Amino acid sequence: MQQQISVITLGISDLARSKTFYREGFGWKPVFENDEIAFYQMNGLVLGTWLQNKLAADMNVSESGRPGTFALAHNVSSQAEVTAVLARLADVGGRILRKADAPPHGGFRGYVTDPDGHAWEIAFNPAWKIDERGLVTFAI
Amino acid sequence: MQQQISVITLGISDLARSKTFYREGFGWKPVFENDEIAFYQMNGLVLGTWLQNKLAADMNVSESGRPGTFALAHNVSSQAEVTAVLARLADVGGRILRKADAPPHGGFRGYVTDPDGHAWEIAFNPAWKIDERGLVTFAI
Repeated sequence: MQQQISVITLGISDLARSKTFYREGFGWKPVFENDEIAFYQMNGLVLGTWLQNKLAADMNVSESGRPGTFALAHNVSSQAEVTAVLARLADVGGRILRKADAPPHGGFRGYVTDPDGHAWEIAFNPAWKIDERGLVTFAI
Repeated sequence: MQQQISVITLGISDLARSKTFYREGFGWKPVFENDEIAFYQMNGLVLGTWLQNKLAADMNVSESGRPGTFALAHNVSSQAEVTAVLARLADVGGRILRKADAPPHGGFRGYVTDPDGHAWEIAFNPAWKIDERGLVTFAI
């Protein structure tokens, strides 16, 4: 089967707040939005931010039925950019989990949450190729 | 800034169990693995499954600090395939959250968790273009 993820959907509690964070923090523009969801066309997949009661109903789970630890990552092209992006995200409603530093496995990264608590790692990893479309290839 | 997600990292408690689920259920092969993590090269991004205590330490959060509702989706090419993939995933350690049916917004989908509780939507959405590399383009 195709090694393919089509969508990442994050449950959110306030759509306007969430859109401000993704627009002002990351500079991302929705490809579609209505009064309960925004979709962002990403690098070969789609990011959705959907009111969490709607998402929970669609998933057939209680809103308190929470998943385990997880993180999304966005890669940038320098250590300085890691620091700058984390600072900007914190300025627009993010919460810093970990200031940027060098992990044992190499590179440079920090973690910030979006306003709904979803964790984003902002990372610089010079080994990973990212093309002009944003397509990311694993490497060590 | 590039609308790019480089990695989705899921915290897991048992690496062998998780690899069995992704290998036997989805048929996906890791591009890298050691005794604490497996990486899968996906459609222009990377899926990581990492022991949750390691991920939590990297994120600088407590293991009980859990994020809100979220789901990943994998799209297939027919309603029958949705049903078949859900059944196969349930056979290899998944838990069905929602049997496949037609949501109000169109298409056909069901939800299943991986062995660590992370939710996967298995979906058929004829409006969305998915190319031979698995790159997904939003459409309505």
